[in-house]
Amino acid sequence: MTAHRSRIESFSNPLVKRMRLLREKRHRRAEGLFLAEGLRIATEAREAGVLPHWLFLADEGAGHPLAKALVEATLASGGEVIDTTPAILSKLSGKDNPQTIVGIYAEPKTRLADLDRAAAPIWLVAERPRDPGNLGTMLRTGDAVGAGGLILLDDCTDPYAVEAVRASMGAIFTQRLVQARWDEFLPWLRGGPGELVATWLGGDTQDYQAVRYAAPTFILIGNESQGLPADYAAAADVRVKMPMMGKADSLNAAVAAAVMAYEVLNQRRS
Amino acid sequence: MTAHRSRIESFSNPLVKRMRLLREKRHRRAEGLFLAEGLRIATEAREAGVLPHWLFLADEGAGHPLAKALVEATLASGGEVIDTTPAILSKLSGKDNPQTIVGIYAEPKTRLADLDRAAAPIWLVAERPRDPGNLGTMLRTGDAVGAGGLILLDDCTDPYAVEAVRASMGAIFTQRLVQARWDEFLPWLRGGPGELVATWLGGDTQDYQAVRYAAPTFILIGNESQGLPADYAAAADVRVKMPMMGKADSLNAAVAAAVMAYEVLNQRRS
Repeated sequence: MTAHRSRIESFSNPLVKRMRLLREKRHRRAEGLFLAEGLRIATEAREAGVLPHWLFLADEGAGHPLAKALVEATLASGGEVIDTTPAILSKLSGKDNPQTIVGIYAEPKTRLADLDRAAAPIWLVAERPRDPGNLGTMLRTGDAVGAGGLILLDDCTDPYAVEAVRASMGAIFTQRLVQARWDEFLPWLRGGPGELVATWLGGDTQDYQAVRYAAPTFILIGNESQGLPADYAAAADVRVKMPMMGKADSLNAAVAAAVMAYEVLNQRRS
Repeated sequence: MTAHRSRIESFSNPLVKRMRLLREKRHRRAEGLFLAEGLRIATEAREAGVLPHWLFLADEGAGHPLAKALVEATLASGGEVIDTTPAILSKLSGKDNPQTIVGIYAEPKTRLADLDRAAAPIWLVAERPRDPGNLGTMLRTGDAVGAGGLILLDDCTDPYAVEAVRASMGAIFTQRLVQARWDEFLPWLRGGPGELVATWLGGDTQDYQAVRYAAPTFILIGNESQGLPADYAAAADVRVKMPMMGKADSLNAAVAAAVMAYEVLNQRRS
């Protein structure tokens, strides 16, 4: 036991009450903190060099070798480890069957100027995503295709919502994540190398496999219900469309991002 | 006004109470009915020849030309049209901001024996999907790639849940949907032409682009957290893997289905 390890069993504990509020966006913003559940995601974070400020463990969780490594690394980095009950983890995460671990992490404040666009051949750019599951899934896909990160344009769902963090499966810690306005993004993009590829349901498009993509490729995906604004699509270097063989005219946004990203990756590896 | 058009404004109306229960799986099963929201999805259904038993409209919805067409077709097919309030639609759909239309449809009871496998070059097969959003997204992707339908194996989330229907964006009405046990599915599959392609994270896999797929291609996707059982993968004709360039070892299940399905489609159109 070090000074930074303690035990909490009371729902009315002030830290529990405070951390529980992180399920609401305004409290996340005010605190600059977010919550990630599960040993797997916390281990991904640790391997990426990111450790929680507070690590809550229910009894069973603490026995796992990876949990032990996480506890040690958290304490070594100056974080606090709190042994607690499944009921309190459930209260923190809002889930009936909580994971055995909940970590509280600082929200990174990455700006466009912090990105090294040459660090990766693919970047995902999502305009006003509103579904946290889609947003998290795009982060997860970004990791899979070797993207550098996800740039969120304009007003979007909060990437640090529990559902988004969960869907990212740890990629929230490995992908760079930037929120920017379109009128900041476009000048930044044009200030260096990079091709902006818009997935677009309107006219003047090419088949997504007919284009040879140049790195770094910025894949631009529109809002789930409205698609991209026409002027955003017009500002892109190329507008592409996936073949649609059925009745529907569009794909789920996270699916469209993945199909595009794998095409870019496949061209690079062939 | 015909005999089949009426107005309901009371929350305690017996039909409202009964239809509201369709948000629960056991009531859907008992009634053989499910609920779909929105003019867009109801219009997709109508265009596929599927009309609701009951069509609830809030006042604004009834003015739209597509809503008018829907009302006429519903009445002509013997269904009932109910003019109601946004508050009652909200009660039916469980959403704060309900769509202006809610349709109540019969669950089709499609069995493996009803499928014409030669009718489409691609079929999706999902083993124990547990997330209704993923399930609906797979239906939507199936429509986009010209698949014939989705076969659900073993114990899975209910495809007629509101979230799954919503994520399908109408494809629940255009894709065939079958629920079967693995030990029914495999003999059925082997009783005719068709290649079973498993997405598999274990050993003995090929790169998903190194394989030439033969139609009809059955794309087998495992459960979100556990992947496919080893014996299911072993029974497939081929086991494939998408390249994974990052820290994670897997894709979201609906994303994996889409990346695979577009590869099969792209081979066919090249």
